[in-house]
Amino acid sequence: MKKFTAPELKSVLLKDSVMAPRQKNCYAATIPQCIKQTIDTGRIQAFALDWKEGMPNQPHVFWDSDVAKVLEGMAYTLALNPDPALEKIYDEWVDLICSAQQPDGYLNVYFTIVKPEDRFKHLSYAHELYCAGHLIEAAVAGYQALGKTKLLDCLCRYADYLCSVFGFEEGKRRGWPGHEEIELALAKLYRLTKKEEYRKLLQYFINDRGTEPNYYEEVEKDPAPRKYAQADVPVREQTSGTGHAVRQIYLCCGMADLAEIDQDESLLAVCERLHDHIVSKQMYLTGGIGSNFYQEKFSVDYDLSNGGLMYAESCAAMGFALFAIRMFNITGNTKYLDTVERCIYNGILSGISLDGNQFFYTNYLEVDENLPPAVDSRERQPWFGCACCPTSFARFLPQLGKFIYSVNAEENEISLNIPAANHAEIELKGKKVVFDVESGYPYDGKIVVRIKSEAEFTLKFRIPGWCRKWNAKLNGAEINEKAITRCRNNDILELDLEMNPEWYYANPRITTNTGRIAIMRGPIVYTLEEIDQTCPVREMILKLDEPLKLVAAPDGLPSDVPVIEGKALREKFAGEELYPTTPPEYSEVTFRAIPYALWQNRGDCNMAVWMRRA
Amino acid sequence: MKKFTAPELKSVLLKDSVMAPRQKNCYAATIPQCIKQTIDTGRIQAFALDWKEGMPNQPHVFWDSDVAKVLEGMAYTLALNPDPALEKIYDEWVDLICSAQQPDGYLNVYFTIVKPEDRFKHLSYAHELYCAGHLIEAAVAGYQALGKTKLLDCLCRYADYLCSVFGFEEGKRRGWPGHEEIELALAKLYRLTKKEEYRKLLQYFINDRGTEPNYYEEVEKDPAPRKYAQADVPVREQTSGTGHAVRQIYLCCGMADLAEIDQDESLLAVCERLHDHIVSKQMYLTGGIGSNFYQEKFSVDYDLSNGGLMYAESCAAMGFALFAIRMFNITGNTKYLDTVERCIYNGILSGISLDGNQFFYTNYLEVDENLPPAVDSRERQPWFGCACCPTSFARFLPQLGKFIYSVNAEENEISLNIPAANHAEIELKGKKVVFDVESGYPYDGKIVVRIKSEAEFTLKFRIPGWCRKWNAKLNGAEINEKAITRCRNNDILELDLEMNPEWYYANPRITTNTGRIAIMRGPIVYTLEEIDQTCPVREMILKLDEPLKLVAAPDGLPSDVPVIEGKALREKFAGEELYPTTPPEYSEVTFRAIPYALWQNRGDCNMAVWMRRA
Repeated sequence: MKKFTAPELKSVLLKDSVMAPRQKNCYAATIPQCIKQTIDTGRIQAFALDWKEGMPNQPHVFWDSDVAKVLEGMAYTLALNPDPALEKIYDEWVDLICSAQQPDGYLNVYFTIVKPEDRFKHLSYAHELYCAGHLIEAAVAGYQALGKTKLLDCLCRYADYLCSVFGFEEGKRRGWPGHEEIELALAKLYRLTKKEEYRKLLQYFINDRGTEPNYYEEVEKDPAPRKYAQADVPVREQTSGTGHAVRQIYLCCGMADLAEIDQDESLLAVCERLHDHIVSKQMYLTGGIGSNFYQEKFSVDYDLSNGGLMYAESCAAMGFALFAIRMFNITGNTKYLDTVERCIYNGILSGISLDGNQFFYTNYLEVDENLPPAVDSRERQPWFGCACCPTSFARFLPQLGKFIYSVNAEENEISLNIPAANHAEIELKGKKVVFDVESGYPYDGKIVVRIKSEAEFTLKFRIPGWCRKWNAKLNGAEINEKAITRCRNNDILELDLEMNPEWYYANPRITTNTGRIAIMRGPIVYTLEEIDQTCPVREMILKLDEPLKLVAAPDGLPSDVPVIEGKALREKFAGEELYPTTPPEYSEVTFRAIPYALWQNRGDCNMAVWMRRA
Repeated sequence: MKKFTAPELKSVLLKDSVMAPRQKNCYAATIPQCIKQTIDTGRIQAFALDWKEGMPNQPHVFWDSDVAKVLEGMAYTLALNPDPALEKIYDEWVDLICSAQQPDGYLNVYFTIVKPEDRFKHLSYAHELYCAGHLIEAAVAGYQALGKTKLLDCLCRYADYLCSVFGFEEGKRRGWPGHEEIELALAKLYRLTKKEEYRKLLQYFINDRGTEPNYYEEVEKDPAPRKYAQADVPVREQTSGTGHAVRQIYLCCGMADLAEIDQDESLLAVCERLHDHIVSKQMYLTGGIGSNFYQEKFSVDYDLSNGGLMYAESCAAMGFALFAIRMFNITGNTKYLDTVERCIYNGILSGISLDGNQFFYTNYLEVDENLPPAVDSRERQPWFGCACCPTSFARFLPQLGKFIYSVNAEENEISLNIPAANHAEIELKGKKVVFDVESGYPYDGKIVVRIKSEAEFTLKFRIPGWCRKWNAKLNGAEINEKAITRCRNNDILELDLEMNPEWYYANPRITTNTGRIAIMRGPIVYTLEEIDQTCPVREMILKLDEPLKLVAAPDGLPSDVPVIEGKALREKFAGEELYPTTPPEYSEVTFRAIPYALWQNRGDCNMAVWMRRA
């Protein structure tokens, strides 16, 4: 079953104009900002365990996870950018965190100093095992990216303790994480340490979940988490994205990991079913998932409204990409890379400002002053009380290189997943393979891949799902396969992925989008910001029979961004009546659309991805 | 200022095919059902004050209001339909309620037996003065409709007590009703008793509201009710529907009453401004108001989405009609009658099933299986834990006759507000005027009014705002005025209000309705129920250039209901893709639309008022 793994983080140096600058700004702005907030809000200091009732900054149940995610991001960032000052903070934080570990191995600020009597009593909503999972991920990252072992040793002790508490075995208790995360963390820890107990605990958390009697009902006396926390049926019976979207998608990651570890085809089939269901019925065009603002949930199929009380949390899109890359690495099916790419270039990068220090929780597909946002502000914010999104970016962006290639040592094979410009030095069966990818991807479909290799290997390259026509040349000669089976030193692969602006309709079951149209070009979803138009976006009807052309980027956006220009009708009513009976009049106007991920980088204005069509 | 009052309830006998059957079913089904629920849930028994902690049916803060509203409805119903069995229940309830009055005059179940220590401590959310208001309304109704005085005496004592507690005067305390209602009730009580204290308390509640220091913040230590309960600014500075819609509109009723009582032109101007703002920016085509499901609130201007998390509570539409008829009676401006009529024939009657025993809280303008309703069921329900809507119908429907005419004794004038078929015997300055109105209104614009009168008077008749062309004849001779200034015995007025199906657009600021169209004919808003179509409603695009014609009503609807038939395009995509790129294909289909108020009387199916247009 297992085919691919991600190459080592340091082996891929991004050189493209979309991901590389985001990664750079993550180092320059996102990480420093998250560090500052983590300090200012008392999150890191809480690990000193000196908070007492009545003092400010009472630790919150999910604070440990925020610290862990920033720490994880720091580890990746340090691997890519050695920085003694940053490393000093990293080491100090690790010391402080490790100092909070209890004699039995337990490590959680809130349940050590705020509610020590409640340890493991409120798994449904108290984020206790979620925090453990993120700390484990941070520890594994610290070891893999920097070779540091202190946090890893500490978290192994905590994991050992968790193994002694939870499980199927006699004498151990039941308990399901309310917010999944520990599962994928245990998979990482198992893969690193090969310690069988971690695999067993992972198996327990996956396989006990949703069985009867329901743990939440039986022990915590609360039926609400059944659906909200994906525990209504055993995980192998799940058929669609259900409940809290980030929880669902982190569970999917853990399920995929366990499927690979156990070579469990039936579990893998469940993962594929969930992926396919979400992609075909529950996903925004941008890759955003979890459309229901209230409780950050998946809604019913096809409920994908564009504004107001919609959601599409940044964390959920990142989680979806992390699930999809796992599924590609296990199966080699490129449909999962289409999901990865759709999420990264659209619904993920939309969640963070170009300069890296402002964040969306909700990724709207439409804003209008007459369409009230569910949250106080429709603009990106520097931080949130519930800070999962900023800290998710802090750990996600430094990992972008891991999505570019997948390596299959067993079959002597490397997959070029996303042909963004990069320089990579990948070890394959002890030999070094060097790639230099030159491209304007994702804004241009012409790609040149120069290969230096100490040995022959198979190079697979992906033709994206959106691409209708492509051409590949190996050393100047056309090839028809999506692979070079005996790739040699000095080979040059030239790829030409035809990339035209295309109209996308919506299934009429998405009732808010009937009569509407969206534009994509390659993997990029476009949107109309009012700042680029000559009339209100809500008055425009895009003319589908008129050609679309590319024009230069406006001030305030990177200069290589292809802007799409076309014709529209402006529908104008004579007065301001609420319900006029006099038909409107029409005039022709030009519209300009920019990549969705770049919206609201030139101030706040109305915006719509799905426009009326004529 | 004051021009009109409603005629006595018994003086108007409805004979039309829309209101009369609803009123009949209110007597036959709504009232009995409300009585049964009021008994079964313990609401009436609670007045025995024998509930104790641990017993079932713990009284709730708003229960008194439910009982009061049913009682009010019983009084009107008994006036129209003498019924000894019903009157026995009425009298027993009155006895029980009066027995709950405390020695100081206080009368509230919850704050007598559940939380006696909290009397008047939580005005913001505890419905205490709201319950008092409804009890006063019931008492006034019992006296005016049936001549009964027991409840009135009891409530006068309670009102006297309230006057001793609240007010501007030295020694009295501040306090603002969280849910307005007591204001309009005090106005009724003042008009009946002419007791100056009641007017003073009404003045206090209106004029202190929203002043600084804010009572909710200062005393109840909660800033939330500021906007939610219309207390953010003094009422005279209010400019738009704000916060909880029913609260806002009941406040408007009280303000209009005080404006009339005090002949206060500036307060009247505020009422007009609020009415006009709501009508021009915050009202559904159906007259529904308060579009925000969460907290049942007014939203920002133009946020009038059709499904999902919309609201348009039945009670709010009834409140709006009650406010608008007050405004017409004070000003004589028929724009308010347009509001009355829009609400009654659409957003109010939609809230109750034809048979009178199922109710909507939310009045959706669109339902689709892919558009999840905010509530558990999108179907009408026989009762709700929060039972305001059923009990509002129980008291509103028997009063429908009060909307038909307005009487201005001072100017010897009667206004025919809504020309629905009826027989009326109205006393004007001691003389009797008898009207026999024959019409198919609101389904037909031809009206014949036969007048018997002991003396001459002025008959004003309204030409509705929707009517583009009309013709009036007095005794066969055409007249051009909207009045007969010297109406005599045996006069016959013939009115012909041209009534054609018309297309209504939506202001593009209602972003969910851009590209959509609705149909009205006369005062009736139409809707497409899927049961009447040959394809899913969501796939249909109405053809505006094709004629609309009237066809017979389908089985299950009253036989005189004019159904509108027209042509539509069916837009069909080849597959089930979520985001197809292949353009859809079109075929022509016939659509049928029924009056919105009649939807979901033939089972549950998809429905939409606002349809795509071509």
